[in-house]
Amino acid sequence: MNETTARKTTDANDDRHQQKPHVLTLPLDDQQADREPHSYERWLLAKLMRMAGDPPVRFQLWNDDLIEPEKGQPRFTLRLTDPKALFALVTNPNLAFGDLYAAGRLQVDGDLPELMEALYRAVHQARQQWPKWLEALWRNHNPRSTGVSEAKENIHHHYDLGNEFYQLWLDQAEMQYTCAYYESPDLTLEQAQLAKLEHVCRKLRLKPGMTVVEAGCGWGGLARYMARNYGVKVHSYNISTEQLAYARAEAKCQQLDHLIDYVEDDYRNISGQYDAFVSIGMLEHVGKENYQALSQLIRRSLKPDGIALLHSIGRNRPMLMNAWIEKRIFPGAYPPSISEFMGICEEGGFSVLDVENLRLHYAQTLTHWMERYRNSMDKVTDMYDEHFARAWEMYLAGSTAAFRAGSLQLFQVVFTHGENNELPRTRQDLYTFPAAPEVQ
Amino acid sequence: MNETTARKTTDANDDRHQQKPHVLTLPLDDQQADREPHSYERWLLAKLMRMAGDPPVRFQLWNDDLIEPEKGQPRFTLRLTDPKALFALVTNPNLAFGDLYAAGRLQVDGDLPELMEALYRAVHQARQQWPKWLEALWRNHNPRSTGVSEAKENIHHHYDLGNEFYQLWLDQAEMQYTCAYYESPDLTLEQAQLAKLEHVCRKLRLKPGMTVVEAGCGWGGLARYMARNYGVKVHSYNISTEQLAYARAEAKCQQLDHLIDYVEDDYRNISGQYDAFVSIGMLEHVGKENYQALSQLIRRSLKPDGIALLHSIGRNRPMLMNAWIEKRIFPGAYPPSISEFMGICEEGGFSVLDVENLRLHYAQTLTHWMERYRNSMDKVTDMYDEHFARAWEMYLAGSTAAFRAGSLQLFQVVFTHGENNELPRTRQDLYTFPAAPEVQ
Repeated sequence: MNETTARKTTDANDDRHQQKPHVLTLPLDDQQADREPHSYERWLLAKLMRMAGDPPVRFQLWNDDLIEPEKGQPRFTLRLTDPKALFALVTNPNLAFGDLYAAGRLQVDGDLPELMEALYRAVHQARQQWPKWLEALWRNHNPRSTGVSEAKENIHHHYDLGNEFYQLWLDQAEMQYTCAYYESPDLTLEQAQLAKLEHVCRKLRLKPGMTVVEAGCGWGGLARYMARNYGVKVHSYNISTEQLAYARAEAKCQQLDHLIDYVEDDYRNISGQYDAFVSIGMLEHVGKENYQALSQLIRRSLKPDGIALLHSIGRNRPMLMNAWIEKRIFPGAYPPSISEFMGICEEGGFSVLDVENLRLHYAQTLTHWMERYRNSMDKVTDMYDEHFARAWEMYLAGSTAAFRAGSLQLFQVVFTHGENNELPRTRQDLYTFPAAPEVQ
Repeated sequence: MNETTARKTTDANDDRHQQKPHVLTLPLDDQQADREPHSYERWLLAKLMRMAGDPPVRFQLWNDDLIEPEKGQPRFTLRLTDPKALFALVTNPNLAFGDLYAAGRLQVDGDLPELMEALYRAVHQARQQWPKWLEALWRNHNPRSTGVSEAKENIHHHYDLGNEFYQLWLDQAEMQYTCAYYESPDLTLEQAQLAKLEHVCRKLRLKPGMTVVEAGCGWGGLARYMARNYGVKVHSYNISTEQLAYARAEAKCQQLDHLIDYVEDDYRNISGQYDAFVSIGMLEHVGKENYQALSQLIRRSLKPDGIALLHSIGRNRPMLMNAWIEKRIFPGAYPPSISEFMGICEEGGFSVLDVENLRLHYAQTLTHWMERYRNSMDKVTDMYDEHFARAWEMYLAGSTAAFRAGSLQLFQVVFTHGENNELPRTRQDLYTFPAAPEVQ
């Protein structure tokens, strides 16, 4: 990595209130980068590896010294360029790993998603033995607020990076920035994203003339799919200005604008009653403190025989978001555990009809995104800078790994009012013919 | 109802420690049964109806006086035979309704399941407005203990009533005393029960030679189905002596005994590791205080790539079992809410793969049971007495109503170890051909 670039980006002291998508990092400590490592530095790294469950990793220090793992053969080499990088990594690995990688002060020899998966799996086992002081030192923090004005800021930080940026690596079919559905393993990203949209529509049992409200619509692809293929009227809420501009232009271009109303407003301001309530990939941004209000909102927005579907990243048990992701990538993010997710349904007096976990589908989606992203990294560097490009590479690699290692889940939850007896008898109708289109 | 019979059964002061399946009731107050009702008695009944949300019900008192509902037309007439019945109903309706019906002191003019559904729906709405003192007066109580020895007693109370009794009204195919699966609406009870067994086997992705452990096996039908149709080896645990005798005889008769080990022991003593863990209709009897231990048990009993399935009655939100059902029919019963259910999965570090709610399938199952049961009520009266026969009529009618009204749910939950990546890609394979056999 070019050190000038790295130094340039460190000037941004706090990215939260900035328009530009900079990623904060620690000050570069290059004056000391050619001194000999101290023995306590070696000891700290060895300790770090033991506490992380002895992943198959060795470290290469700034003077090219190697710290080999105590157990097993290393599959990856992590190079640290300076002593302060070492110190940051040991004291706050959750935050520093991503920051150092983005700054080029932690360099990886080996496949990045595979490294991250090995780390997740090792830490997942090891953390059960951690002493309390280590839990406290390495803890993730509560996500920042997701109140109406903060949510606007949080969403702006991520989703308003520019449509051009996302177009580099998302599917060309409907710009879906959520888990795809690989009903067969060899689907293209485009097919799998359309299959996801179809799968969701089937779960909602849409019929022509129905009305749908969507909370958080991204670039509007689901609304267009529903209008085009199911002849329903859709009200889609979003607070990302950039995404809505794209969504509206695309609906007009496809002559679907008479069926779709893209509303630039917070989901909390949804009004009216609908046959279906759907939200794909927004619950992660809602925040636990707003689950009760969300539940009541769905309760009043859904007709007595309406069906609701929430699609969200989740957890096998309650756990805070990784500090680096929450701070640098997704401010305010908190994926609910499955029991917290069900608590949302309980709060509104709903009856849960169907839960499907698409975890490995998200790993495959991310693998596809990652491949395209890497092919476009030069362009990303030109659009932003190398620091940003490496941060997003780490984010995509880490997410791939998290879904592979089971640290993240993807839940699709279908529910309805507790009193509703107009229910689909079975789920057979979801599988009568393939959800994905043939390749054109 | 024959009053001699009613009086006879009131001698049983506590059924819990008795071998005979008597059902306790209140002392009959027939000395006062022909006096005029007091005005405060009329007032109490009117109050009861208002607090119960004005169900379409009128009361006929012991002197034939009618108390009409304040709102709407009555669809049902409830006759109370004596003043103490009135007092019991008003002060403790959850318990007294069933007791009085069983004793013939509350008689119903109209369809019993429909009446119960109307009551459940009205009360469900009305209880949100109840003052605290009424909540306290009418509350259900914590279920009795489900420790190892108490569980034996609880299970004995219900499941050891005699196989002959259950054979009168359960399906002739595999004696299934759990929710059937009506993949098409016109299935017979036998077809739907076999479809349930097939649906469960498919969800477990069984293959020949696999090993399965079953917690709570009833009359052993699932074990036989699995051995017969999937060539797997099954260890099935149960503490009901009567059921196990039947299960073993049947397996021998079908020459499946080399594949099935029916173990007379508490599920807590399951040992070994298996490809699948399955439990159909036992979780209701486990008790909240044992969820953690159950979760750890499944964790150690399931191979790394094994799949577990729990099938249980559940709730849309945490709520105690109806007092009469818990006291008279199912001692120790507590159906978990969906978030409590998911808590069991979280506790063991599991990943939830699939949740399906079969609520209306249970309503249909119960309708089928009820029809057969009513056709056999004379036989049931001969086997036990009229009080018992009416108590079970009320239990089946009330359960039918509870599933129709959404007060009870039926969840099938599939999960696996959090680290397992050997997952079924989709649920398409559950639906490739009908689960139910053709009618022979």
